[in-house]
Amino acid sequence: MEIKEIRAEELNAEKFIDQQIRRISETVGEGSAINALSGGVDSSVVTLLGHKGLGKKLTTYFIDNGLMRQGEPQAVVLLFERLGVPVKLIDAQKEFFKALKGIVDPEKKREAITQTFYKKVFGRLVKASEAKFLLQGTNLTDIEETVAGIKRQHNVFEQLGIDPKKAFGYRIIEPLIQLRKDGVRKVAWALGLPKSVYERIPFPGPALAARVIGEVTPRRVEVARRATAITEEVLADTGAFQYLAILHKDRVTGVRDGKRVYGLQIEIRCWDSVDARVATPTKLSHKILSTLAERITTEISEVVSVTYNITPKPPSTIEAI
Amino acid sequence: MEIKEIRAEELNAEKFIDQQIRRISETVGEGSAINALSGGVDSSVVTLLGHKGLGKKLTTYFIDNGLMRQGEPQAVVLLFERLGVPVKLIDAQKEFFKALKGIVDPEKKREAITQTFYKKVFGRLVKASEAKFLLQGTNLTDIEETVAGIKRQHNVFEQLGIDPKKAFGYRIIEPLIQLRKDGVRKVAWALGLPKSVYERIPFPGPALAARVIGEVTPRRVEVARRATAITEEVLADTGAFQYLAILHKDRVTGVRDGKRVYGLQIEIRCWDSVDARVATPTKLSHKILSTLAERITTEISEVVSVTYNITPKPPSTIEAI
Repeated sequence: MEIKEIRAEELNAEKFIDQQIRRISETVGEGSAINALSGGVDSSVVTLLGHKGLGKKLTTYFIDNGLMRQGEPQAVVLLFERLGVPVKLIDAQKEFFKALKGIVDPEKKREAITQTFYKKVFGRLVKASEAKFLLQGTNLTDIEETVAGIKRQHNVFEQLGIDPKKAFGYRIIEPLIQLRKDGVRKVAWALGLPKSVYERIPFPGPALAARVIGEVTPRRVEVARRATAITEEVLADTGAFQYLAILHKDRVTGVRDGKRVYGLQIEIRCWDSVDARVATPTKLSHKILSTLAERITTEISEVVSVTYNITPKPPSTIEAI
Repeated sequence: MEIKEIRAEELNAEKFIDQQIRRISETVGEGSAINALSGGVDSSVVTLLGHKGLGKKLTTYFIDNGLMRQGEPQAVVLLFERLGVPVKLIDAQKEFFKALKGIVDPEKKREAITQTFYKKVFGRLVKASEAKFLLQGTNLTDIEETVAGIKRQHNVFEQLGIDPKKAFGYRIIEPLIQLRKDGVRKVAWALGLPKSVYERIPFPGPALAARVIGEVTPRRVEVARRATAITEEVLADTGAFQYLAILHKDRVTGVRDGKRVYGLQIEIRCWDSVDARVATPTKLSHKILSTLAERITTEISEVVSVTYNITPKPPSTIEAI
């Protein structure tokens, strides 16, 4: 299937929104649909388009996998509630942590999260629902990267060896498939979504599991979560493309209450970039760097060391795993 | 035994040198002595005092444990040759790496190095020699820290459960026992030792093994060695108290030849400090930081990521392990 790209600069967002709302409404007809909202710009836009096209015929789920940022599940649900869109919050934390137990290999972590999401949690919701349609926020770059073998995002069910029609009897609707990220952002803005959605810094699919080197346990995710909250707060006004905090597996020596301890280390990365293809570390002031280190080691007592990435991409990548 | 401290500011280095040379000479008499030179200021001063007091009656060994910096064993031997002091270079690399094989715990690494040095390599040399005297560079701080349980340096044989007199039939001479580091440096200067010896940045006892998180293998030490050489070259003119490169065990994602790889990460630490008790990261320019990252990732292709420590001591420590 040839997909006709709509470039951001030629996109008429209002017209696009009207077309997609109509298309979703016509496709679903008298049936019903479901979708999963993550809070990212793609799924946020799809949720709002679906809501406008289907109203109560759409059920939107937010699946709390225990890997989201501080207060994120509640904030996303609240935001959409304010926009008049009800979202069902599903607490699946235990199920995800069970699947992640003992896994240190980054690829296997991703696999465990994908399997738990699609085959278990969301799969169960799909099966239980009467819906015959699934709305997904797949965009053109996702498809290209899937074809190129870089990412696995498009039509994950098929890639997992599940024929969605056979297994669940539903069809997939992908309203954003002709757009790239910049186009999706334009639509988000036109839909009246807040800046926190359309200017949200990139956040990886496996969420904080991608920010924890080694085993992903509730306790280790909590350290990464708190370090992430501090990092996002301190670096919010830098105008950087992306910033992140990574919990290392390596332990390093530190001093706590006059005693030698083997503590945790957090690595901060802050990137200047246009499109994430190449990136350079932001030239943060020593004052900001020292604030980061002080707050993180003071507010998270297990952490005795904070480093700052100084390597560009390439040869580094944006994320650590 | 009460040791009478000689403070650096009251030290008359020339007089001290004369006294120690005479004392060493009188103590050894017609016998002979041996000592181990590491290239650090303490063992360098002791080697020169011993040489002046004993001449050919002293045999000095440099034990290459495979953990020294780039060209260090050869450079130290050459330096003392130029000063007229012959040094026997003992290649014990295989023995040390064999003892370190499979060990990841930092304390156990230190233990393996100490045991291999004293019980095996140097112990063999002591036994084989006709010497009845052993010269050691123990200083007053070493003793205090040993008493306090912080360090283990003074009279290591006894601590290893070996009575040196019984086992080897020799006596230990410690000419620097009344001095602290600043006093030893003053003596080094008065002895005409080069700046590279008396202004040498601190380097840990376990050498590069202290700069490798995880297992210490020849290949991993070589990465730390090359990163250390680049770091010392780039930061030589910063006037910093100490700088070091640490090889992490954690692997991180990188890009090499357009392909995703799990590569190595090097952490740089550069410290401003007076006496190492408290220390702050040096405010290096972004130009220097970027030079460090670029050189390390270009010259050592296994390394895809370089970070810079931004945490003060405390809660960090100077070294990572």
